[in-house]
Amino acid sequence: MLKDYRKTLEEYRQNNLDRARLLIKCPDQPGIVAAVSTFLQNHGANILESNQYSEDPLGGTFFIRMEFACPGLTEKKARIEAEFAEIGSRFNMKYEFRYVSSLKKTAIFVSKEPHCLRELLWEWQNGDLMMEISCIISNYEDSRELAESLGIPFYYIPANKEIRNEVEEKQLKILEEHGIELIILARYMQILTPNFVSHYPKQIINIHHSFLPAFIGARPYERAFARGVKLIGATSHYVTNDLDEGPIIEQGVERVNHRDQVQELKKIGKNIERSVLARAVKWHLQDRVIVTGNKTIVFD
Amino acid sequence: MLKDYRKTLEEYRQNNLDRARLLIKCPDQPGIVAAVSTFLQNHGANILESNQYSEDPLGGTFFIRMEFACPGLTEKKARIEAEFAEIGSRFNMKYEFRYVSSLKKTAIFVSKEPHCLRELLWEWQNGDLMMEISCIISNYEDSRELAESLGIPFYYIPANKEIRNEVEEKQLKILEEHGIELIILARYMQILTPNFVSHYPKQIINIHHSFLPAFIGARPYERAFARGVKLIGATSHYVTNDLDEGPIIEQGVERVNHRDQVQELKKIGKNIERSVLARAVKWHLQDRVIVTGNKTIVFD
Amino acid sequence: MLKDYRKTLEEYRQNNLDRARLLIKCPDQPGIVAAVSTFLQNHGANILESNQYSEDPLGGTFFIRMEFACPGLTEKKARIEAEFAEIGSRFNMKYEFRYVSSLKKTAIFVSKEPHCLRELLWEWQNGDLMMEISCIISNYEDSRELAESLGIPFYYIPANKEIRNEVEEKQLKILEEHGIELIILARYMQILTPNFVSHYPKQIINIHHSFLPAFIGARPYERAFARGVKLIGATSHYVTNDLDEGPIIEQGVERVNHRDQVQELKKIGKNIERSVLARAVKWHLQDRVIVTGNKTIVFD
Amino acid sequence: MLKDYRKTLEEYRQNNLDRARLLIKCPDQPGIVAAVSTFLQNHGANILESNQYSEDPLGGTFFIRMEFACPGLTEKKARIEAEFAEIGSRFNMKYEFRYVSSLKKTAIFVSKEPHCLRELLWEWQNGDLMMEISCIISNYEDSRELAESLGIPFYYIPANKEIRNEVEEKQLKILEEHGIELIILARYMQILTPNFVSHYPKQIINIHHSFLPAFIGARPYERAFARGVKLIGATSHYVTNDLDEGPIIEQGVERVNHRDQVQELKKIGKNIERSVLARAVKWHLQDRVIVTGNKTIVFD
Repeated sequence: MLKDYRKTLEEYRQNNLDRARLLIKCPDQPGIVAAVSTFLQNHGANILESNQYSEDPLGGTFFIRMEFACPGLTEKKARIEAEFAEIGSRFNMKYEFRYVSSLKKTAIFVSKEPHCLRELLWEWQNGDLMMEISCIISNYEDSRELAESLGIPFYYIPANKEIRNEVEEKQLKILEEHGIELIILARYMQILTPNFVSHYPKQIINIHHSFLPAFIGARPYERAFARGVKLIGATSHYVTNDLDEGPIIEQGVERVNHRDQVQELKKIGKNIERSVLARAVKWHLQDRVIVTGNKTIVFD
Repeated sequence: MLKDYRKTLEEYRQNNLDRARLLIKCPDQPGIVAAVSTFLQNHGANILESNQYSEDPLGGTFFIRMEFACPGLTEKKARIEAEFAEIGSRFNMKYEFRYVSSLKKTAIFVSKEPHCLRELLWEWQNGDLMMEISCIISNYEDSRELAESLGIPFYYIPANKEIRNEVEEKQLKILEEHGIELIILARYMQILTPNFVSHYPKQIINIHHSFLPAFIGARPYERAFARGVKLIGATSHYVTNDLDEGPIIEQGVERVNHRDQVQELKKIGKNIERSVLARAVKWHLQDRVIVTGNKTIVFD
Repeated sequence: MLKDYRKTLEEYRQNNLDRARLLIKCPDQPGIVAAVSTFLQNHGANILESNQYSEDPLGGTFFIRMEFACPGLTEKKARIEAEFAEIGSRFNMKYEFRYVSSLKKTAIFVSKEPHCLRELLWEWQNGDLMMEISCIISNYEDSRELAESLGIPFYYIPANKEIRNEVEEKQLKILEEHGIELIILARYMQILTPNFVSHYPKQIINIHHSFLPAFIGARPYERAFARGVKLIGATSHYVTNDLDEGPIIEQGVERVNHRDQVQELKKIGKNIERSVLARAVKWHLQDRVIVTGNKTIVFD
Repeated sequence: MLKDYRKTLEEYRQNNLDRARLLIKCPDQPGIVAAVSTFLQNHGANILESNQYSEDPLGGTFFIRMEFACPGLTEKKARIEAEFAEIGSRFNMKYEFRYVSSLKKTAIFVSKEPHCLRELLWEWQNGDLMMEISCIISNYEDSRELAESLGIPFYYIPANKEIRNEVEEKQLKILEEHGIELIILARYMQILTPNFVSHYPKQIINIHHSFLPAFIGARPYERAFARGVKLIGATSHYVTNDLDEGPIIEQGVERVNHRDQVQELKKIGKNIERSVLARAVKWHLQDRVIVTGNKTIVFD
């Protein structure tokens, strides 16, 4: 039933050749929206969705996400980008044009637990996660069959603390070969080194199995059980060099009670993890997430 | 502890003399946002928050809410409104300027159950509902003490089906005297006639004690109990001539189980009702709700 | 990774040979719990979990679910059942012993949308739904590959209103051959006749894609969109002869907003549907659901 | 409208003279339920609600809460308690009889923020919290008016770190005079000493304004804002000598987003705090909460 998911992706790409998103971060001041929207109009673009957020109207940072359709975008985009430079510099902007038809090349890392990987693949097959899954990397063989049944290259790279550097070297080589733009840690249970993380700033999305900042680190369900919490949760965040301290994209929780042992917490938790991660990835793919400091703005 | 709520309101008014919201509804076409934001910039306004929604980018209706600060607004507003007329007509807009310092004159209707009235008064005293409560009207005497303790005029108007027209005549007279702009039915258990409703289109907010469209009409908790639902809810909506069929502003639900008898459903339900109504009123007061057809856009 | 699910089921069966559940419904009166628990104790059983509910302590119906472990249960169960008859008759009970190791023989019906079927199979493979999936029946070929990859017999029976009786005849034959005890309608989009339903009273679980009793019948997401609700939901219930009116087992909702078109409602809805159905099925399999009148008691 | 709340309490007391709850904690073994329920039956009691929980059926601790009605309880209770001692000793039980008509004598502590106090008083006036509010103690004068308007003794005891011991001495004296059985810290912002806590073990309920164990200690909303969480919460727990580390009774959360500044987090948080605390108190008053180790069993 899901055989046509590659066709779905290709159709999506074709249908969105005229579509782009403009992401802007700049000091707040009057006239920004007027300048940007006049510019887009003058280039024949129609704004489909526009989101703005001002940290502080009295002089903080201003954030914009505009999604627009522009007939003939493929031909026009070089010129649009070139001409926007003047506005960018006038308002001291950091900005980026993202093209909807350029699906992000993605690598999924997974260890033994398959539920997050499965959810992502499922949503991807359904046409709900518009990305190119270039490869799946795992320190276990378990997910090979699933990956290969969908025609996705699978790399088995055994890993542990002692051989971390060699492992990451192999991984980085694969990621580079595939031109990876996004890494999803779908319950990948190895810690990444600062060196690895530095290659993919704000491009690595992790799912942590607790409502951060509670239960940072290992065995959060065991610790949630020991603490007797009445809610358990999961958190999806960008990976930085501080363990479980990166900018939070999305969180979810469910109620639990005294009858739920660690095993039940894990089962309930798996359902939270997979839906929280899938939402975070979807928002990232739609360029709805802007990182500012150690926080995120999510224009959902 | 809450003695200073009138002072709070007055301070809020004074602090927001420069602040306004522009609400727009028009056919979608390129250039609208550019025109509006350029206009505001040219009048020295700084856009603080901007929300847009396009029903259908290929020619549906386009909705804008822009909140802006404009130094000297009190003096400039006549001219701003006059000059905006050209843009309004060019883009075939329905639009309105709302001034944050003009607190909406509000009447609250209540019958016997006081929980929604109490919640509204509480949030109002806390400075979370910025409105002028001009009067409270009830078909019971029960809330008089509470109303008068806060210095709010209280009108007792006994009501029943037989004398509906006379009752509404009295009510309309009071509402007119107070220049009422918003009516909140805080569990007012009388049906309003089309004549009454026609005086306050999209200005009457009701709370219905079910998750509409389930359990339209009377005794929803009893019917929810009989049906054995596992969730009960409440719905806040604008009142139209179709009972419980007006545009929905907000809904909430809570889980219930087989042990909950009708009385427990009512208790749980009261907590849903008061929070749902308070949220709907808050969004209305902040001009975040736009009615389109029989639906609402809520720019929250 | 999930190859061993049949082994998991078999291990579960072996590990639970001593385990049973006793379900009781009877007029409330003093002494019931004392009699039942003394009886179980005298037969060497240890009560692991006990749930009771009295509709009305002053003479309504009383419900019990007791799960117990009893060494040597396989040999003892005939005698236990025979000797319990006296208590059953003394208290005018309807009761039933259910043996945990007797996994319910289940048929899953599905039409085109695979998400509910997939969720059920996934949870089943994970060892979270302890049932024997004897067959999958569909009016489309789409799920054949998935079913057969798991070694589950798949029956393609084209269906429409005109040939309903012949279709059901074929289905009933298959169900009988497999000795089916539970039918799950995992988004099976055909209406069942009273004749069909009468073969499986309280044994057919459906998932309806609305928070019933709102949007009974066809196209609930389209109608939810038209009504402008701020919450959408799904309901799992036992099938009776009244369309979408059977006893509700579980419901769930999610918030939506004005930006969500019908297509988004369907996507959000699918996630609600699959989790609500999976919970309902799990509770049914654990004998936690007792139907009383048109309602359910769920001892979760 | 709420004038008759004392009458409501008195009626409740009178209507429940025959009603009691038996709480039991003992090593799990066969025969406990049979023994207890036979005992109650033999004394003419009808079990209205029964909850049981076994930490570990293979030899952990077993917990029971039975609510029963027994005609003539007032006369019979001394004898029931005396005769139950044999069962208690046979099964090595810790147990307690609680009489529904003995409303717990309660003191509410509050500092400046009144929302939790107001919610408790409101629910109490509505007849939803069955307790005797013997006094309100505050380190601010702000709540005096509200307390005295309801006829509740109000004690103003200024407090700060330097005079902690004198303050607590005064407080303990008042609590003793009133025979207090339950202390509710309704946003009382002073830390209690181990000496104070030792007088009321498992009898002090606090509301902490975060989803513990996240943001233990001071200024949780500021820290939640800084961390960029997408959910904020509140936790009600019994007070022990470890700050914010006592057994959790109830927790709640709400979604927030990047637009919510600290002030909004506090507003949203207040609504979570008051409902979480009210639920925790209600369960405590109904003897539904059993503390075991540093966790709670809540038989709701």
